[in-house]
Amino acid sequence: MRSNLNQETIAALATGRGGAIGVIRVSGPDAVAVADAVFVARSGKPLSEAAGYTVHFGEVVAGGSGGEGALGREVVDEVLVSVFRAPHSYTGEDAVEISCHGSSYIEARILGLLIEAGARAAEPGEFTMRAFLAGKMDLAQAEAVADLIAAGDRAQHRLAMDQMKGGVSSALAGLREELVQLAALLELELDFGEEDVAFADRGRLKELAEGIEAEIERLKATFEQGNAIREGVAVAIVGRPNAGKSTLLNALAGDERAMVSDIAGTTRDRIEERVVVGGVGFRFVDTAGLRATDDELERMGIERTRDAIRRARVVMLVMDAVEAGVCDIEAQVAELGLREDQQLCVVLNKVDVVGALDAESGSVGSSGAVLGTVSGAVSGEVQAWFSAADFPGSVFEISAKTGFGLDALRDWLVGTVDVRGFDSGAAVVSGARHFEALSRASDAVGRVLAGLRGGFSASEVCDSGSGLSSDLLAAEVREVLHHLGSITGDITSSEVLGAIFSKFCIGK
Amino acid sequence: MRSNLNQETIAALATGRGGAIGVIRVSGPDAVAVADAVFVARSGKPLSEAAGYTVHFGEVVAGGSGGEGALGREVVDEVLVSVFRAPHSYTGEDAVEISCHGSSYIEARILGLLIEAGARAAEPGEFTMRAFLAGKMDLAQAEAVADLIAAGDRAQHRLAMDQMKGGVSSALAGLREELVQLAALLELELDFGEEDVAFADRGRLKELAEGIEAEIERLKATFEQGNAIREGVAVAIVGRPNAGKSTLLNALAGDERAMVSDIAGTTRDRIEERVVVGGVGFRFVDTAGLRATDDELERMGIERTRDAIRRARVVMLVMDAVEAGVCDIEAQVAELGLREDQQLCVVLNKVDVVGALDAESGSVGSSGAVLGTVSGAVSGEVQAWFSAADFPGSVFEISAKTGFGLDALRDWLVGTVDVRGFDSGAAVVSGARHFEALSRASDAVGRVLAGLRGGFSASEVCDSGSGLSSDLLAAEVREVLHHLGSITGDITSSEVLGAIFSKFCIGK
Repeated sequence: MRSNLNQETIAALATGRGGAIGVIRVSGPDAVAVADAVFVARSGKPLSEAAGYTVHFGEVVAGGSGGEGALGREVVDEVLVSVFRAPHSYTGEDAVEISCHGSSYIEARILGLLIEAGARAAEPGEFTMRAFLAGKMDLAQAEAVADLIAAGDRAQHRLAMDQMKGGVSSALAGLREELVQLAALLELELDFGEEDVAFADRGRLKELAEGIEAEIERLKATFEQGNAIREGVAVAIVGRPNAGKSTLLNALAGDERAMVSDIAGTTRDRIEERVVVGGVGFRFVDTAGLRATDDELERMGIERTRDAIRRARVVMLVMDAVEAGVCDIEAQVAELGLREDQQLCVVLNKVDVVGALDAESGSVGSSGAVLGTVSGAVSGEVQAWFSAADFPGSVFEISAKTGFGLDALRDWLVGTVDVRGFDSGAAVVSGARHFEALSRASDAVGRVLAGLRGGFSASEVCDSGSGLSSDLLAAEVREVLHHLGSITGDITSSEVLGAIFSKFCIGK
Repeated sequence: MRSNLNQETIAALATGRGGAIGVIRVSGPDAVAVADAVFVARSGKPLSEAAGYTVHFGEVVAGGSGGEGALGREVVDEVLVSVFRAPHSYTGEDAVEISCHGSSYIEARILGLLIEAGARAAEPGEFTMRAFLAGKMDLAQAEAVADLIAAGDRAQHRLAMDQMKGGVSSALAGLREELVQLAALLELELDFGEEDVAFADRGRLKELAEGIEAEIERLKATFEQGNAIREGVAVAIVGRPNAGKSTLLNALAGDERAMVSDIAGTTRDRIEERVVVGGVGFRFVDTAGLRATDDELERMGIERTRDAIRRARVVMLVMDAVEAGVCDIEAQVAELGLREDQQLCVVLNKVDVVGALDAESGSVGSSGAVLGTVSGAVSGEVQAWFSAADFPGSVFEISAKTGFGLDALRDWLVGTVDVRGFDSGAAVVSGARHFEALSRASDAVGRVLAGLRGGFSASEVCDSGSGLSSDLLAAEVREVLHHLGSITGDITSSEVLGAIFSKFCIGK
């Protein structure tokens, strides 16, 4: 139990609007008493006599606990009430869940009655915050709950579930153990420092610190992947109008479109389209083409394109295979100005048309039959160029219309995010707050290592210019512990907690 | 048990989107087995061993029931599962409710797993249809469940709750009893018919039929009120632009606006505004003014206004008190062409301005202080006219801006719908289907009474021209019973059931 201050009983609607059922949660020391004040069980027994993990059918009644027909007594709803007893509940407190009809009027009435009976309306995330404060989960796990609810695809779900089940936390627990060992060795060094004898285990110290640094760096490195999954992998689509970008997006999404999440901002933003491919969410940003221009408006559009390309993890250049020529491809790829950490693919679309054109010797076919082969679909010149040039990306010949080549493209896209990492059980960091804490921890570890490498003494004043005294080193190690502890919430402040849980929805 | 054919187990999401919690319902003979196939309880015990009305914590797992770490095994969510045993459940069948995190991805995954395990996706209203088929409620009560969920204000809620608790059903049960008595007396008449002796209880027969007719007519008469509450009372607002109609609507709604339901169609329709006043829902239709015109477009607008006025239960003529003159009021009221069953009120708005104008001898006041009195606020001429003329409506002097006079207007509006009827415990009919059945029953009762009044004999051929044979009368009585029975579902067809429950949401 991290805190003992939850004397208040809170209540909130925990379900969304428009359903057949609404669930109202109540938690706190008076949860059962508050529920008893508004609920009359069909059995006639009060909830105060009920065991945990039992369900009770009855009525929520307004206007006093008088018997049937009492003046002003009004049945608000027939409900099911589940009772949970501390500490065996989500929050670790006494808790009650009232399952009522999914009418916003009824839900508001019941909440109003609970508040009249002594409950307080819960703040966003307050139930989960109480679970954290009661030690039911650490902070990283609690944060994962919000991610889990927001998860719109398989990769996001895996990421959040792994974190909620303690994946990140246990990786950090391992680190903490090693850090405590390091601190102990440094203390030993301090104790023996007066004798000014280099301690036998100095090599062991360095080795330990290097191991810690490597693990922190490994965790930091997972962030890019984790964040891409959490936010959706940014893909800039470059290509002329009518190259078939929209058809391609629809074809890539296939049946998964229905799973596309409707988080505010993604669907409203007309430029960005969120599409789930192979269980991974991608944010496709459709851009204007790049070319030199004097037109002010067009220049602004091109600046936005450049910005989208800069932010993208993957750049997809979609071209009409009929029109694609070597010079054009070369020029367009050069214009992109990609960084080394970005991935490029050139998608030659509409190979069905080219194929049909070849087959019918010159006339463009009207319907695209699925091609068994694309040999000859793209001009020999272009193919030769791709083979000869040390082309820095992948090339796909596809037909968004017939589906030809899409599986390969899909696999490549999903491959840009290594989702298989999860299956190995390795922890992946996805939260910006966690990344920041890891970065700070990494800086402190760096200073520890620099000190160890530069030589250090037990005295405050350094012997060599580059070295650090061992008590300063011990302080740095404590700082590493502090930053790592802030991730799991072992070390935290109420402001940090407030900031974290305010992002939750009410009722969670 | 009305039917025994529910061999299939059904599953559906029962909660709306955007909440912290999602609830998935499963019902049918294999409900517990299906849930066991996807759920691993923390306790290790299968749900098949669980008693009804108990809750179980554990995980929904995809990829087989292998142990921890089995290949391909994936934790989809941590959930709470409530178990209900037939017949002690909503549907009367074995049932399970899975409470998961409110992520649409997770909800879809769990539903998918349940379907893989042998459940079928439920049709809209199928849970409630099963409750009806299992005899847990009659048809009128089942229909009230959908109304209860849609209830957006206090009056709608009272109406639906009363019907769900059996208000209408018990009124009909009383009628049925009397009808059965009537039928028995007619049978007696038939038995003794051969002797061609007028039966001693003929007076009693007529009395009984008249009582039945009166009760059916009473129930029919409640429909107008019930339907107004169910659909919202239609109020046409007539008045010039800038008479303060929008301000008035907002002022009338007060704090209740948050309760306004967002049923599709009401909020999207720009012309109609749904406002809850004193717990009753009103549908205010803002109309264009009425006046003779040659302009084709304006004429179409006026036609729409006439239509809105025709459909309205209440017509509210809002006028600027500063400008209101006798001739104008007279002309406008005459133009409305109201029927006797419609109610009219004239609202003289902006009396604060008039008051300030009076007080400052000619200059219009800029801010409207709440007036303690409105004596002199409206021109003496207009007041005299209202007093002298046999004015066919109510008149209110108000200030939508300061709130002056609104309580009286609110009371009057709510008074146009007699909500107090509920408190007396009298049943109110609100469904169009019920009204139609009552109307048909009423016609048949009318024929019975005509037969009784015109004299009747036991033989097929009537003695007098106006009479009916008693066996034809008995057939009419059976028809009344049939129509009344169709309301509660004692007599029904599968098409009727399908039509009723398809209007429900899925998961209910």
